[in-house]
Amino acid sequence: MPTLSLSQTVQAIASGERSAAEVLETCIARIETTDARVNAFTGTRFDAARAQAAQVDARRARGEPLGPLAGVPFAVKNLFDIAGEVTLAGSKVNRSHPPATADAVLVQRLQAAGAVLVGSLNMDEFAYGFTTENTHYGPTRNPHNLDCTAGGSSGGSGAAVAAGQVPLTLGSDTNGSIRVPSSFCGIWGFKPTFGRLSRRGSFPFVHSIDHLGPFADDLPGLALAYDALQGPDPQDPGCFATAVEPTTGSLAQGVEGLRVGVLGGYFDAMATPAAREAVALAADALGAHTTVQRGVEWPDAAAARAAAFIVTASEGGQLHLDSLRTRAADHEPLSVDRLIAGALQPAAWYVRAQRFRRRYRDQVNALFRDWDVLIAPATPLAAPAIGSEWVDINGQQLPCRPSIGLLTQPVSFSGCPVVTAPMWPGGTGGLPIGVQLIAAPWREDLALRAGWALAQSGVAQVKESSL
Amino acid sequence: MPTLSLSQTVQAIASGERSAAEVLETCIARIETTDARVNAFTGTRFDAARAQAAQVDARRARGEPLGPLAGVPFAVKNLFDIAGEVTLAGSKVNRSHPPATADAVLVQRLQAAGAVLVGSLNMDEFAYGFTTENTHYGPTRNPHNLDCTAGGSSGGSGAAVAAGQVPLTLGSDTNGSIRVPSSFCGIWGFKPTFGRLSRRGSFPFVHSIDHLGPFADDLPGLALAYDALQGPDPQDPGCFATAVEPTTGSLAQGVEGLRVGVLGGYFDAMATPAAREAVALAADALGAHTTVQRGVEWPDAAAARAAAFIVTASEGGQLHLDSLRTRAADHEPLSVDRLIAGALQPAAWYVRAQRFRRRYRDQVNALFRDWDVLIAPATPLAAPAIGSEWVDINGQQLPCRPSIGLLTQPVSFSGCPVVTAPMWPGGTGGLPIGVQLIAAPWREDLALRAGWALAQSGVAQVKESSL
Repeated sequence: MPTLSLSQTVQAIASGERSAAEVLETCIARIETTDARVNAFTGTRFDAARAQAAQVDARRARGEPLGPLAGVPFAVKNLFDIAGEVTLAGSKVNRSHPPATADAVLVQRLQAAGAVLVGSLNMDEFAYGFTTENTHYGPTRNPHNLDCTAGGSSGGSGAAVAAGQVPLTLGSDTNGSIRVPSSFCGIWGFKPTFGRLSRRGSFPFVHSIDHLGPFADDLPGLALAYDALQGPDPQDPGCFATAVEPTTGSLAQGVEGLRVGVLGGYFDAMATPAAREAVALAADALGAHTTVQRGVEWPDAAAARAAAFIVTASEGGQLHLDSLRTRAADHEPLSVDRLIAGALQPAAWYVRAQRFRRRYRDQVNALFRDWDVLIAPATPLAAPAIGSEWVDINGQQLPCRPSIGLLTQPVSFSGCPVVTAPMWPGGTGGLPIGVQLIAAPWREDLALRAGWALAQSGVAQVKESSL
Repeated sequence: MPTLSLSQTVQAIASGERSAAEVLETCIARIETTDARVNAFTGTRFDAARAQAAQVDARRARGEPLGPLAGVPFAVKNLFDIAGEVTLAGSKVNRSHPPATADAVLVQRLQAAGAVLVGSLNMDEFAYGFTTENTHYGPTRNPHNLDCTAGGSSGGSGAAVAAGQVPLTLGSDTNGSIRVPSSFCGIWGFKPTFGRLSRRGSFPFVHSIDHLGPFADDLPGLALAYDALQGPDPQDPGCFATAVEPTTGSLAQGVEGLRVGVLGGYFDAMATPAAREAVALAADALGAHTTVQRGVEWPDAAAARAAAFIVTASEGGQLHLDSLRTRAADHEPLSVDRLIAGALQPAAWYVRAQRFRRRYRDQVNALFRDWDVLIAPATPLAAPAIGSEWVDINGQQLPCRPSIGLLTQPVSFSGCPVVTAPMWPGGTGGLPIGVQLIAAPWREDLALRAGWALAQSGVAQVKESSL
């Protein structure tokens, strides 16, 4: 049987061409044959998934209405609560926590739409990293080159989709943790507006910047999943959404008339030639339908990145202060020092960073008076080899792991919604690089429409791995 | 001529019984005869005020419509911008700043309503204190006992009204800086909901807690001034008001049917017998029209006070970091150490305090499902002597200056609107103690209606000083 993408899976199950059970067994088989190499999953629940898939098939047999994601297998970064399981958030420390008593809100919503939960996925400890080189659970490997990182912190979520294990996953993004793995793994990733999706039942990292969002192997599937995830949550004070604003239907509107800009300055200077080519490919494809202007100025991105580092380390350090004091040796060696340093930073730095952020966000939002979609690379380069300590970006030797977030951090710090589109420039040894499609706050529809145009043009695509 | 209160002044000028010029000259004469002793004013602009008053009288003579505060003399804490003047915020450091180029938004709004600005008022340096013992500009003295503090940080705003110098002033309140001086000076003070009034054009202290608000010598006048001050300000991102919600008319609705509770626990334990008596007087007076329940539990007030201290010191310290580094000796000796310590606090403390605040605010807001108005003392005691280092609160020796805010800090940290009503219990040597009338966020009308009931009963009143 040919492999089906997310939206094809929905169609095939709805039409009866395939059963949910068949689709699930294909995924399970794929996980079993590939995950020893990829290491995307930290937990599976195949029997529970089989029961859920059987329910979908039974509903169909009875002629009952099916949800918009009926029978779609999905998996979640292991910071989402799954009832009865311990929420690891990539850590050893959390193993002593009691099991979750309920599923995270977003897990509930996907299940309510008919999707079938098959397991939980690897990540950087406490989401503090861009490479999913997890010392406790091993690194997640890139399905397009097993020597390379899958990106992080939602590396399992990126790799599982890229490896064809499941067509849909959930992850989180504070400074790039959805956009980086989707860039390195060559799949679609979506970080909606800050405050759009409920975070209830997920393990936090940086309360004032954390976002949740989906990964998928096709763009209409991404929109479908996002529409199932959206909606107000009166019980989550950090969820500012007041209504569902469906985007699936808006894809058909196309991009004719949209004002598209390509970010210059910092976003060009910090991109390798391959990342620049990824952007050029996207700009050219969109330019067939719109007028694209190059060199658009974004406000002070380098300062925003510095401020995002300070806020991240301070809130992360505060969150884990107890275990840092008592069990520092049980923390991830790659991030424990940053957490300790963050907790010790002076409050004046944190206050200044948040003050900067308010002005910065206003300046960023003002850009969208002139632009509907802004384009930038998601990462400065394609996936580096696991264990890399240094990268070269246009002649500058920079520390590898933090530099992966150079182009995502300034964007999430403003809270804009971003779709990451999988592009395939030359000079990367066949590895992908994602492009960020950035829209004004609460205009997820515009970013998705731009993504759909890129998918239809064929320039953005999810390729099968050789696994 | 008998002295007129704020709302009487409005009536008298509107009816032509008095001219704005006469009213103004009475105020100027009063300032000139009393302010050498009270020290409420740090700057006057009598000639500009005379020109403004003449305009009001000219408009009246021409039969043109007058604003709701036409001819009312007012003065503002010297952290409000006045075009052409340097905004001191009680400091020596700010003297080197350029003059303000525009009036603060709230000053503009009062002037647009016809009020006449006569000068600027003394305060604790950078609003960091509860006693207006300002080393640079001298202490403001309590008009009811010149040996006693007027409270702070808006001490000049409280004393000017209590001394009969002007019927209306503006101040700011972060941890109690409106409610404390109105309590000690025996006048009406109003701290609206956090985010209700525009702060544009005022010198900040703690961005995430600062409130602005009016003082007045009668309750209907307070509501009238508040209605002139309110309204959205798209240019102030910290102003969350979306519309004007007039309260003046709502006073006539009375308090019949309102659910009134008296806070117990911490708010009783930290009150001296005189403060308890002030609350009992208010509760009894409201009980004539409503059912009043004693001993209502407020969430963890002591923790809220600790968190408010941390947020205050951190944001204040950050704001003044440059001058603390270069000109510490020019700062107020009574607060400079707290600012330096605040800037050095670990970020983890600040983050934890803000995290606590979110939960706390939700818990406080939940109280208002059961209550329309909650009552507590504004200060644990009546005004102490200037220079006091220690106070006795029910047998506990506590440091005087910070303890003055024991009962206001936990309330402002949640953001609720609070009217302070002037009460006159026994055992204070004739000094007043204010009572906080606390309502749910955005329900300023309910706090004002309770205040009006107390005013009508005669139990809350502004008394003439013997100056």
